[in-house]
Amino acid sequence: MKIIGEKINGTRAQVRTAIINRDSNFIRTLAEDQVKAGVDLLDVNAGTTPDREPEDLVWLIKTIQEVVDVPLCIDSTNTIALTEALNHVKQEPMINSISGDPERLENMLPVVAKHNCAVIALALDESGIPKSVEDRMKVLKRVFSATRDAGISDEKVYADPLIMTIGTDTQAGLIALESIKAIKREYPKAHITSGLSNISFGLPGRSLINRTFLTLALEAGLDSAIVDPTNQGLRESLIVTELLLGQDKFCRRYTQAFRSGLVGINK
Amino acid sequence: MKIIGEKINGTRAQVRTAIINRDSNFIRTLAEDQVKAGVDLLDVNAGTTPDREPEDLVWLIKTIQEVVDVPLCIDSTNTIALTEALNHVKQEPMINSISGDPERLENMLPVVAKHNCAVIALALDESGIPKSVEDRMKVLKRVFSATRDAGISDEKVYADPLIMTIGTDTQAGLIALESIKAIKREYPKAHITSGLSNISFGLPGRSLINRTFLTLALEAGLDSAIVDPTNQGLRESLIVTELLLGQDKFCRRYTQAFRSGLVGINK
Repeated sequence: MKIIGEKINGTRAQVRTAIINRDSNFIRTLAEDQVKAGVDLLDVNAGTTPDREPEDLVWLIKTIQEVVDVPLCIDSTNTIALTEALNHVKQEPMINSISGDPERLENMLPVVAKHNCAVIALALDESGIPKSVEDRMKVLKRVFSATRDAGISDEKVYADPLIMTIGTDTQAGLIALESIKAIKREYPKAHITSGLSNISFGLPGRSLINRTFLTLALEAGLDSAIVDPTNQGLRESLIVTELLLGQDKFCRRYTQAFRSGLVGINK
Repeated sequence: MKIIGEKINGTRAQVRTAIINRDSNFIRTLAEDQVKAGVDLLDVNAGTTPDREPEDLVWLIKTIQEVVDVPLCIDSTNTIALTEALNHVKQEPMINSISGDPERLENMLPVVAKHNCAVIALALDESGIPKSVEDRMKVLKRVFSATRDAGISDEKVYADPLIMTIGTDTQAGLIALESIKAIKREYPKAHITSGLSNISFGLPGRSLINRTFLTLALEAGLDSAIVDPTNQGLRESLIVTELLLGQDKFCRRYTQAFRSGLVGINK
């Protein structure tokens, strides 16, 4: 399971303020806390207006790389900002994201192919997020066709089925799980990632819903997630679910996590 | 999800002592606490020696039925005790259990057929619990053949895949989940039940493992479980998982449970 830490995101008011004020301490703490919590990558989203995004993104990357050395997931569809950002990353990055939108594909794919790096592929296009599993798969078919044509191997693609909230559609969980299974079946060499927290949007007890959904999504085939890695319940669910799915040899990781107090905080 | 409360079981020392001493208050409290927690049935196991089991089982049933009126799941393979017990139940009971053992089938099936009640069918035979999914399915094939021959419809059968501990075999969770899926595929009209707590035997933090496994087992097709219904974490997982699997119309049950403090106790 590849964990992408979601917290450095300029669409959140506090982070945006820190970016605009060049508050390096705030950003560094966000980076360090997530790395301590065991992330594999840090998502980096400046979230500012196009005119200032290139400069903001580069500042973020430099600031983060001063204190941690995990790879970054550059979260931007602004090709100028993205291209500039990629000149400053120290480790092989991931790009977040392409989609079935032809214009976005045309702009982004050359950048992805040039850097030969992993890329998140959203199951949406210019007309929005398809409701059914079938329509999401149709969008992804176009995306995979384009990535293959651009010479990007399926192993580099992290397909995102786009998880919607069960708060407005009680079938949203099933649709997400079926989409994950369909992606795994159709593109067995590709990876599957998603932001999990959407599932509980608008409902109380969100953390509990999110961690339970992580368990179901892992069984379905999710092998990466964009989450708040400092959420203890989520980490607990991850460790226990991997144990139950036979991915923890001699139960070693689980028993070590239990001894160190990382799991067993909840009953 | 049909919850069978597991706590009135004479193989547990405290319960055994209460049975032998005819401690009605102890037994009544066990019954009332489980009913308050929302069970659908109460498992009743005297667990005493064959000579006294008929009398003990009848006493248990009478004692329980003085205070609660949920159906009982009569847990005995002693046909004398079972036959006697069935004369005293007020609601249509369940019988726990038959298996692929020919002698057990021969003794038990006429009793089940006569009372036309639901029965738990274990995926084991006289040579023990098969290790592989395939061998468990072979045993269940013999059991379903026998129940059908005896005029018992599949709807009355609660197949139990027999969950083993991941403490000694890290594949045990996957084997259980694959078995559940196979039963659902082969016998779509039958039900699937199991004692969940075996999964965590010998490991620390058992409650957390059990509740996470419940989530996975529900998705695989489990529609009943023999559990401690007073375990809050387990009930919480059940409610949230049913929400995520699209079984909670308008999220009503979840939001009510949240408001009443039944879920959201853990993060």
